[in-house]
Amino acid sequence: MPFAVAESLTRRGIAPVLFALRGACDPARVERFRHRWISVGQLGRATRLFREEGCRDLIFIGTLMRPALSEIRLDFKTLRVLGNVIRAFRGGDDHLLSGVGRILEQDGFRMVGIKDVAPDLLMPEGCITRATPAGSASADIARGREVLAALGPFDIGQAAVVIDGHVVAVEDIEGTDGLLARVARLRADGRIRALSGHGVLVKAPKSGQDLRYDLPTVGPRTVEGAARAGLAGIAVIAGNTLAAEPQAMIEAADAKRLFVVGLQS
Amino acid sequence: MPFAVAESLTRRGIAPVLFALRGACDPARVERFRHRWISVGQLGRATRLFREEGCRDLIFIGTLMRPALSEIRLDFKTLRVLGNVIRAFRGGDDHLLSGVGRILEQDGFRMVGIKDVAPDLLMPEGCITRATPAGSASADIARGREVLAALGPFDIGQAAVVIDGHVVAVEDIEGTDGLLARVARLRADGRIRALSGHGVLVKAPKSGQDLRYDLPTVGPRTVEGAARAGLAGIAVIAGNTLAAEPQAMIEAADAKRLFVVGLQS
Repeated sequence: MPFAVAESLTRRGIAPVLFALRGACDPARVERFRHRWISVGQLGRATRLFREEGCRDLIFIGTLMRPALSEIRLDFKTLRVLGNVIRAFRGGDDHLLSGVGRILEQDGFRMVGIKDVAPDLLMPEGCITRATPAGSASADIARGREVLAALGPFDIGQAAVVIDGHVVAVEDIEGTDGLLARVARLRADGRIRALSGHGVLVKAPKSGQDLRYDLPTVGPRTVEGAARAGLAGIAVIAGNTLAAEPQAMIEAADAKRLFVVGLQS
Repeated sequence: MPFAVAESLTRRGIAPVLFALRGACDPARVERFRHRWISVGQLGRATRLFREEGCRDLIFIGTLMRPALSEIRLDFKTLRVLGNVIRAFRGGDDHLLSGVGRILEQDGFRMVGIKDVAPDLLMPEGCITRATPAGSASADIARGREVLAALGPFDIGQAAVVIDGHVVAVEDIEGTDGLLARVARLRADGRIRALSGHGVLVKAPKSGQDLRYDLPTVGPRTVEGAARAGLAGIAVIAGNTLAAEPQAMIEAADAKRLFVVGLQS
């Protein structure tokens, strides 16, 4: 995803600089762009590099698996703001990102989101596949949006699987791929009796979620997972969902006869 | 559980008759009580047997795994009420039970719950173990009750695991044992960083759930699962939760230093 954003910016004549997190990025791909390497806990060094490169707008891309505290080497700046960082650690991943974002904003940087700088990577409204939501799918989509809205105040559940009106499973920290694998397993175990080709994966941002830091994402892997889970399709919020490799996603969905639809927010 | 209820009734001088579902009950244990065998789909025969035995009050015990339609041999009475039964099938397990319950009520039977006839099997208020909720456990319990309340309108989530304020996972159709196994796996995979001995399994009836047909249950197996998931304890709603094998549950919890607490409803 960071590379897709960098390419989108480059296409539009904007020169990005990648600040790549050591251990989390593929060096071969990073090296195709102007870049600097940084480490978790090195906020002082990162801030200095941002300034050296003349960057004012910053985007965080990718979820930060919370690192073990023992793996972190803190620099002086990080130590100074440690109280805020620890508070951020206690929250979910997006709390961590928004906590660090707030610190950078106090330093005069502007935190922006993929939504702001690469709108061409967002899901459009409407159905982008040959298959379209039919039968019980529309009711399943509505039910999915309801359960996600109910879970909004909690740091869980950016996705739900609804089959023939039943909320079968809700995403937890294992993420959407884990959710779909769970549904596939429940189906294999006979706990889900509905025929294959029934049910919808519904994804929506959590209410109050800072979309600069954590945007729901779908891509070919989501389609593969939904197909293995025996679902009819995928519904996401148009404009508030990243489409990773959209062409590959549409081809995968058409091959499996799944629909992918962008809903009005 | 049906046998515990039958024993509780017998102790109090009430003679129960077991109507055992073929394929779902252990014949050796059924035979210790007055009993008749019935099959799924044989509602006419069941109704006749209830009358033969002079039963007016009926209790459903155990969750009915939804049977494959192809496995069912329908009798005439079932065929007559088939519309209602199919509607019941479309709901969750408790819809199925309450759908059949409504049909039996129209026939003049009185549907009662374990809550009504064997209150000695319900969780009392307060902590029943040596360990008690300490540190972040009280806040985790409150958070768990909040998320379960939010999920109330949906046919999912009679249980949640909350660790240090995070809702880590919500029960789906895989049940509480599956939920706890999932949390144990997330911990083993390093997705949950919190120390072992943190976090609470919170169970509560769904709002609007008919407690005659589906009461949350805890027992020694719940304690074993919570221990494997590295939790500090279990919190359930006093009076609205069945305690299966309470003595064995307390002993298992004390051995693992887990708390089990009954909350005011």
